[in-house]
This record gives sequence, C-alpha cells and structure tokens, in this order.
Amino acid sequence: MTDSDVIDSYARDRTFVEPGKPLGAVLATSREDVETTLRWATENRVPVVPRGAGTGLAGGATAGDGSIVLSLAKMTAIRELSPADEIAVVEPGVITADLDRAAREHGLMYAPDPSSYEISTIGGNLATNAGGLRCVKYGVTRDSVLGLEVVLADGRVVNTGRRTLKGVTGYDLTGLLVGSEGTLGVITEATVRLRRAPQRPPATFAAEFGSLREAGAAVSAIVAAGCQPSLMELLDRATLEAIDDMRNIGLEAETMAMLIGQSDASDGEAAVARMEELCTANGATFVAVSSSPQETEQLIGVRRMAYEAKERLGACLVEDVCVPRSALADMIGAIEAAAVRHGVRICTVAHAGDGNLHPVFVFEHGTVEPPPEVWAATDEVFTHALSLGGTLTGEHGVGVLKRRWLDMEAGPVVRDLHHSIKAAFDPLGILNPGKAI
Amino acid sequence: MTDSDVIDSYARDRTFVEPGKPLGAVLATSREDVETTLRWATENRVPVVPRGAGTGLAGGATAGDGSIVLSLAKMTAIRELSPADEIAVVEPGVITADLDRAAREHGLMYAPDPSSYEISTIGGNLATNAGGLRCVKYGVTRDSVLGLEVVLADGRVVNTGRRTLKGVTGYDLTGLLVGSEGTLGVITEATVRLRRAPQRPPATFAAEFGSLREAGAAVSAIVAAGCQPSLMELLDRATLEAIDDMRNIGLEAETMAMLIGQSDASDGEAAVARMEELCTANGATFVAVSSSPQETEQLIGVRRMAYEAKERLGACLVEDVCVPRSALADMIGAIEAAAVRHGVRICTVAHAGDGNLHPVFVFEHGTVEPPPEVWAATDEVFTHALSLGGTLTGEHGVGVLKRRWLDMEAGPVVRDLHHSIKAAFDPLGILNPGKAI
Ligand SMILES: Cc1cc2nc3c(=O)[nH]c(=O)nc-3n(C[C@H](O)[C@H](O)[C@H](O)COP(=O)(O)OP(=O)(O)OC[C@H]3O[C@@H](n4cnc5c(N)ncnc54)[C@H](O)[C@@H]3O)c2cc1C
Ligand SMILES: Cc1cc2nc3c(=O)[nH]c(=O)nc-3n(C[C@H](O)[C@H](O)[C@H](O)COP(=O)(O)OP(=O)(O)OC[C@H]3O[C@@H](n4cnc5c(N)ncnc54)[C@H](O)[C@@H]3O)c2cc1C
Repeated sequence: MTDSDVIDSYARDRTFVEPGKPLGAVLATSREDVETTLRWATENRVPVVPRGAGTGLAGGATAGDGSIVLSLAKMTAIRELSPADEIAVVEPGVITADLDRAAREHGLMYAPDPSSYEISTIGGNLATNAGGLRCVKYGVTRDSVLGLEVVLADGRVVNTGRRTLKGVTGYDLTGLLVGSEGTLGVITEATVRLRRAPQRPPATFAAEFGSLREAGAAVSAIVAAGCQPSLMELLDRATLEAIDDMRNIGLEAETMAMLIGQSDASDGEAAVARMEELCTANGATFVAVSSSPQETEQLIGVRRMAYEAKERLGACLVEDVCVPRSALADMIGAIEAAAVRHGVRICTVAHAGDGNLHPVFVFEHGTVEPPPEVWAATDEVFTHALSLGGTLTGEHGVGVLKRRWLDMEAGPVVRDLHHSIKAAFDPLGILNPGKAI
Repeated sequence: MTDSDVIDSYARDRTFVEPGKPLGAVLATSREDVETTLRWATENRVPVVPRGAGTGLAGGATAGDGSIVLSLAKMTAIRELSPADEIAVVEPGVITADLDRAAREHGLMYAPDPSSYEISTIGGNLATNAGGLRCVKYGVTRDSVLGLEVVLADGRVVNTGRRTLKGVTGYDLTGLLVGSEGTLGVITEATVRLRRAPQRPPATFAAEFGSLREAGAAVSAIVAAGCQPSLMELLDRATLEAIDDMRNIGLEAETMAMLIGQSDASDGEAAVARMEELCTANGATFVAVSSSPQETEQLIGVRRMAYEAKERLGACLVEDVCVPRSALADMIGAIEAAAVRHGVRICTVAHAGDGNLHPVFVFEHGTVEPPPEVWAATDEVFTHALSLGGTLTGEHGVGVLKRRWLDMEAGPVVRDLHHSIKAAFDPLGILNPGKAI
C-alpha cells in the first residue's frame, strides 16, 4: 500500500511518538511475502519496520521517513495445536487471546496474557517479550516459546529452537530474538508451549487499603507465606479515581490503594482465604472475596479498565519499571514523591507480585511531546528504580522512548555487545533502526 | 599450576575424550584472577578452557594442547541470599546442592537439580544450561537465572540481566551466555532465583511394567490428566539389571521398565494416587507408593544409582536426545532397535516428563574411542530423534562429542549466526575453541 492516509495508520503505535513518512506498507500474508520484502529492502537499503497490532507502549513500531512498514497482522493461522505435546505452531499475527481460547478447547491455555491480549499479536508479544497478569505464576512470553521461524534482514530464513520442552544445541537464538523488538529478524512462525488450564475457575479477592505502603506490605507478606497467587495487581488512588470517574465503582474516600489477587490452584479458596487474612493483618480496610464467576469478572474488570480510564484524563506516557519485590513499597513512595515535586499527575498500576510498576504520567491531550516536568519526573523514577537494583522496563521494551536512559542501566560493554550482535544479524542496519539498543 | 601430573586431572571431564597437554591451570579465587588470566591469554593468543567441577558429559571442559585451564571451582562463596526477594548471588564454584541446602534454611529451594548436583558447580550448570529431575515442574537452569557477571575473552567485565523477576532492557545477553559452554565468556557471579520449597515431603511412587511401550503410555496419560508430577523418571530393563547387579533391588524377571514419579504439591498424595491408577490402567504389573521419607529415599535412590551402576559395566557414551513428549515410546523403540541392529549394549534412563532420554552406550573399559558400531548406533538414534522433531541434546550440551551432528539439526544459517555471535564476543577465538558450535 502506498496511499499516505492508509499508511499513516500503520506508522504509529499506542504512544504519542510522531512517525515520519514511510514509503509504503506491506501487509504480508505469507513467509514468502516477508522474504521478498526483506530482499528488496536489502538491495535498496530501505529501512523496514516490523509491526504486529501496533499496541506497543514504547514506540517500537513507529515508522520513520522513507521506511517500509511490514505488517504481520494478516498472518493469523494457528497451524497446529497438539494437546499430546502441549504445543501450538502459530503465525505471528494471531491475536493473543485467540490462541488462548483455541487452547482452552483442549483443556489447555496459552499463559502469557498482557492486559492488551484481546488486541495484541503473538509476534508483537514475542518481539517485546510481553508480560501480563498471569506471569506472576506462569512466567513471561519467553517462558512459553520453544522455537521460531525468522526471516533475517537479507531475506534468509532461519529456524531456531525446537518442538521439545528442553534443548541446548548451540546458542539460544530463540531467547536472543525474543525481546529484540524487530531489530534482529522478522518472526514468521512460533512454536509455543501450552499449559494445562486450571480445572476450576480461579478464586479471587480485592482488598482496599488506607495507604500504598500497607498494600505493599501485604504483597510482601503474601509472597513470603508462599500463597503463590496466579495474579496480583495493585492500583493506586489516582488510578481508582480515574476508573471511578469512568464507571462508578463506589470508591471510598479513605481508599488509597486496591490489591486484587487470584489463585487458580486446586486449593484456591484456601489460598485466597489466607491472602485475605494477610491483607487484613496488614491494615486492609475492606476485603471482598468473589463467590461467582460474575463477581470475579467485576473485580478483575476494575483492573482491566485502568488503561482506558487514564486515557480519558489526558495523553499518557506509560512507564514500566521493575524492582526487586521487597522494594515495591519504596518504589511506590518514590513515584509519589516525584509526582508532588514536579507537579505531575501520575497514576500507578503494578503487577505487584513481580515488582513491575506502571506509573502513567498524564499530560495534556493533543500535546506532541510530554512537557519538561514529565521528563524530569520520569528521570527521577528511573534513577530511583536503578538504585534499587531495578530495571527501566519490565515488559514493554525500550523502543524509542527509553533509549535515552539505556546506558544508565546497561553500561558501555553491554552497549558494545548489543551493537556487535546487531551487526551479526543485520549488517546493513535496515531492521527497525533507532529502536531497542 | 604447571606440574603436568596435577594439570592432567584438570584437563578432562567425565567423558572418555582424551585431553591434550595444557600449558597450565589457574585456580581462580576472585574475579580479578579471571580478568588477569584472560588479559594475558588475549595478549599471548593462548586458548583458555573454563572449568567447573569437570562432571560434564559432552567433553566441554576437555583441555587441548597449549591451552590454559581456568578452574572456577575455588570460588565457592554464596555472597547473598535474600528470602524477601527470593534470590541468591553466588560465585560460580558453588556446588549445586550446597546452594539448595542454603536456600532450604529459609524455606526456599534452588530448583535445578542435575543428577550430579552433589558434585557439579553452578557455573558449569549455567554454562551447559543443565536440567535435572525436578525440571519437569520447575524448568531448567535458564529458568532460574536472572543476571550474570561475566569476564569476556579480552578481560572486560560485563554485567547482564538484573535482580528483578522481569526485565527486557536490550537483548537477552543472560540467556545467550547460559548454555554457551564457556565459548562466549567466563561466568564469575550469578544472580539466581530461588523458589518456595514445598511445605511437606513429596509423595512418591514407583511402577513396574512388562514393556517400555506401556510405561511410555502411562507417562502420556499422566501428562494428559494434568497430574503435574515434580519428578518423573523412566528406567529400562538394561539399567535396572545394572542396578540390581550392584545393589540387589529384587528385580523381577518380567519387569522391563520402571517409572518413578513424585508430586510435591499440597495435594500430592491425591496426585500420586491418580498417577498410580493411570499406571495400573496402562498395564503396570506392580506399583509401590511410599509412605515415609525413608521409603521415598529408597525409591529415588534406585534412580540416583543408575549412572554409577552403568559405569561398572564398561566405558560409557552418555547420550541425551530430547523428543516431543508424545514421541517418547517411539523413540524408546528406535533405541532398542538400534541396540539390536548394531549389537551394542544400550541402557536408557529418561527424564520422561520432558521427553529427554539418556541412552547410555556401553563399550569396553579402557578403550580410548568408542568402537565403530557404537558410533553407528548413535548416528541412528540421533537421526531418529531429529526426524521426530527432537534435538541432539536436551541438557548436556554439544561439547566436542556432538559437533559432528550439529549441522544436521541446526543447518547452515544457524551455523553462520553462531559463528558471527562467537566473533562478536571473542574475536580471537581463544575461549574454549572447538566446543559447542
Ligand atoms: C491497553 C494496553 C495494555 C497493555 N498491557 C500490557 C501488559 O500487560 N504487558 C505487556 O507486556 N505489554 C502490554 N501492553 C503493550 C503491548 O500490548 C505489548 O508490547 C504487545 O506485546 C505489543 O504487541 P503488538 O502486536 O501490538 O506489537 P506492535 O506494537 O505492533 O510492535 C511491538 C514491537 O514488536 C515488533 N514486532 C511486532 N511484530 C513482529 C514480528 N512478527 N517480528 C519481529 N518484530 C515484530 C515491532 O517492530 C515493535 O518493535 C499494553 C498495551 C495497551 C495498549
Ligand atoms: C553422574 C552424573 C549425572 C549427571 N546428571 C545430569 C543431569 O541430570 N542433568 C544435566 O544437565 N547434566 C547432568 N550431568 C552432566 C554435568 O554434571 C552437567 O553438565 C553440569 O552442569 C556440569 O557442571 P560442572 O561444574 O562439572 O562443569 P564442567 O564439566 O567443568 O564444565 C562444563 C562446561 O561448562 C563450561 N564452564 C564451566 N564453568 C564455567 C564458568 N564459570 N564460566 C563459563 N563456562 C564454564 C566448561 O567450559 C564446559 O564447557 C551429569 C553428570 C554426571 C557425572
């Protein structure tokens, strides 16, 4: 496609980052389309920007001037689903939740479930190593992929990994490609691991706290007690207010944080009862335990509304720091302090069981770039996360948005290795230039 | 050390591969020792062979002529163990089981447990991405490592990964180094993930079968029923005979296979009862369920004796194919057929829950090279494993022993990528040359 209006809708992701003017967009329907595109791009030295659904939050799929957008969104076949081996072979454009639903028909599940799982693609999840709500128990996307088919920058095809659960033949190219944000190769097929779906609906609770610190302490207590939640999400007051504005959830004046947890274990009710106790012991003002699938949907629904609710407040810079679990409360405190110091509105949601926080910096709708005070607050948040032994990004990736902080975390030797690996895969530098590293 | 007698004991691993004559051995006690060694080696273009405990089964730590052996075995400190974050920071020479014991004092465990865990080092486990008995439930070494400190070939130090459970900043260098068999860098520290130790002793069963196929069918049934064993090992008749010869275990004439399984879940007894049923339904002639820790030790002890028992029979070539789980019985049949066709004694043990089989090819003690019929049988076994969508090595690594089959599995594009990654990390090719790729 070369119609500039149409292309524009393929040139941006879910961030505010303004794209350039790409030459055109290719909507690949087969691996051969991808090979042809990359061979042509290599011959003509044209940058290629791989793209799934464009739900990314780091600017990774933003297309620059003179590039070709290579969309994999039309490659949506589930080529194989083997209940005996508990694996599936899928094309990259399969929507995450569709794969999960297909697996459930066989009593299995595809575990990684980013909040965006109804709109994101498996290819995008692989390229960003997406996390999700269930990864506190089941791990991230990396933990569910066994092998890949990838087209390299020069159009050669490589198969990495395997169909087996274990394997150590040669270097772990699969792992290297996962999370590489489209800079090392274009994923055209993936062999993923499925898991047994829990046999009963999960048990669920939601607890309200008068302070974030108490909620943080409850998280630590739950982990230390070995309750093994299959989901544990924390929402701060600012997020709850945004949700309450959108859909009245009866938010109490004294509620400063909400912790939502699930257990999908066979003794899930007992685990949830124990978690409820630990919340109460750590100062929860109110705990609701779900007794039906509808109630569960209501409790989890609050969490799923978070992003939409914030987008109504203004333009959003969604950050993604991750800290050692014991530093969760400390990190939350630092985020609150940064908000106050710089006069910035920050709403925070956390995959609390993993120590992964999403402080969302809200600024005026229609602004092209976040204002200076937002960057200043971001900078403070990143610096603090790193000082706690944390990382800039737990699951969204570096994209273009986090490159300016990369060296602070990674250092010069890592940078050298990144660039020499990049050169090994893509010597001309045509694959998603200016991203990730 | 330069005394050639002493060096010789540092030049070989647990395979029959004959080492060359190294120049000397360095027993590093600090990262600085490693840096100095590698800087000197770079200046003088001398090959360096990193080494943990030398328990490897692929010839990976075999030292060649004119090389320096760099042993990490004296770096045995557990530098930190944080129950709150469920992580430990360890030196590479820590014995695997020692770390697990240290973790247990805090109600935690270090999950990866190769059968060699009382003698192998964490550094060696990382460099080979070791599996183990528990990995059917808890994953392989890769799944328990968060970050590494590594000295590169030129003596530069790099820190990869993090202390957090999740993180996607830049390429996954940690994953790339894990399983790289000492060819990309020398691991001098690792940040590993600990897990909650089960609160009760595991429930255990051992089932005897009149044929391997029935045992294979039982494994499939157990997986399909979602019993989630925390250990599931299969022993063939030849292995059982070797064990019975060494330590009378009262082996019955009609027993052709034994399946040993455990569940460490909170409802472990129920899971084991279900597994017992499924064994019986699939033709088990006898099933013992343990009712005490001593009985459990006895049942598991049979498995732990397997390697020692086989070493008494002759020199051993221990292979390590892994196939999709549903192909387990097929693969076992192919191994038996190869044994008959080539007149070779093969004893097989399998981490059955992962589809990972160790056919051990026994030949005459004192023979330097396995005889041609052993290589012919090996070749047939590998070819069959690959035709089933399997891999040459599930957990032991390629080392020197499996390099001749590497291209059959990996193909030319993967080989190119391996060599260009190697060049990116070690342009002079001094780190463990001739291994892994
Ligand atoms: C409401 C909302 C909630 C979200 N929640 C989460 C969450 O819980 N966890 C989480 O991790 N993320 C979350 N995200 C972020 C986003 O959904 C993920 O990063 C997702 O993995 C992106 O998938 P996509 O198909 O949209 O990829 P895109 O945005 O199209 O691309 C993302 C990156 O992957 C590359 N890429 C895409 N496809 C391929 C391919 N086939 N081969 C090579 N490279 C490719 C692109 O070049 C780009 O660098 C959320 C986003 C939104 C809008
Ligand atoms: C009885 C027995 C049972 C076994 N059971 C299993 C099993 O169940 N699962 C399994 O996976 N393996 C098993 N093994 C194989 C072996 O124990 C593993 O491969 C183990 O990980 C090797 O550890 P090591 O410390 O002995 O390493 P070594 O044998 O010394 O070295 C192995 C490789 O790692 C490299 N290396 C070692 N240390 C470092 C370092 N610090 N930095 C960089 N490179 C390094 C070496 O160069 C070499 O390539 C078994 C072996 C025996 C003898």
